[in-house]
Amino acid sequence: MGKGLPVSMGALIKEFSKMPGIGVHSAKKLTFYILQSEEKEIKALLEHIRTVKENIRFCSVCNNLSEQEICSVCRESDRDRLKICVVNGPNGVIAMEKSGIYHGLYHVLLGELSPIDGIGPEDIKMKELFSRIKKDNIQEVVVATDFTTEGETTALYIIEKLRSSKVRVSRLARGVPAGAILESADMATIQRAFEERK
Amino acid sequence: MGKGLPVSMGALIKEFSKMPGIGVHSAKKLTFYILQSEEKEIKALLEHIRTVKENIRFCSVCNNLSEQEICSVCRESDRDRLKICVVNGPNGVIAMEKSGIYHGLYHVLLGELSPIDGIGPEDIKMKELFSRIKKDNIQEVVVATDFTTEGETTALYIIEKLRSSKVRVSRLARGVPAGAILESADMATIQRAFEERK
Repeated sequence: MGKGLPVSMGALIKEFSKMPGIGVHSAKKLTFYILQSEEKEIKALLEHIRTVKENIRFCSVCNNLSEQEICSVCRESDRDRLKICVVNGPNGVIAMEKSGIYHGLYHVLLGELSPIDGIGPEDIKMKELFSRIKKDNIQEVVVATDFTTEGETTALYIIEKLRSSKVRVSRLARGVPAGAILESADMATIQRAFEERK
Repeated sequence: MGKGLPVSMGALIKEFSKMPGIGVHSAKKLTFYILQSEEKEIKALLEHIRTVKENIRFCSVCNNLSEQEICSVCRESDRDRLKICVVNGPNGVIAMEKSGIYHGLYHVLLGELSPIDGIGPEDIKMKELFSRIKKDNIQEVVVATDFTTEGETTALYIIEKLRSSKVRVSRLARGVPAGAILESADMATIQRAFEERK
């Protein structure tokens, strides 16, 4: 990792390089940042990493990220508890919440169907979705999976499965640019897509 | 940092965003990486950060980064101990070592002269350079500070100071980068390279 550099710095550069979007050059900059930062800055960073790693789990109801057994969204008392919005991952919840247009509950699938990669309903939290719908007498399901091939496959699967039920099912309208990841859509786009859901 | 996200994750995203070259989007990706990585991966990362923060100091001879009182370069027995290459910072040592062309010692200034910012010789390890030269009977000094305004100012200062001494002083040559197409070199580089042709 460069002669003339202490071994432990080379090791840290290598460690940073494993992180998504971090090349060797960035990893070096981060390592120098660690070196030059104040002691208490680094303590805070380490503490926050440890907290996230130790305290974050999946909500036992909706699989959203949570610091407690049940996530903050599921705990909110003024939510419409007869509606479920289905998303691929926690980022979907964040995007929907940011738009401010939806006030029901969520179901985080923690994945998406991808027959090509051999990922079927049993590999994601699909069964849990249908048992929640039945058990909690859910009346409306809004499918807000990503508008990628996998997201659309997942959406179609859910819509098909609920076709014969009494549950009202809708899919976010194609206002979100095709091929885009939900997280990257702007607020207005999400609002429009929500209003025009079918 | 986004509704629907646990507080501690928001805090970690904020912490990552402080790092150089990391925007909110990258910080979010890093936070999810922390969350999804294996326990032992994160333990290694934390351990490496702590080691760098606690064990890295400046070499008491040349100010290079080091895990021990004296750095690995200064400890190497087959170095030419009568030559000193002067660089701005530890990155300069790494760059020179990578080139493999130099086998003497280094002096890391830990900064560069910048009259405009009020940074004078007493603010960097300049005095230490001259006392090393005298004390260790150094015979050659290669100035390899950056080719920026500050780096050039620093180089000129050193060359001027050693003019009346018996020490052989040289400055890395300016010119068209090796492997570069002449057409792609900027005007100033070509002009300089022409003037300094040998």
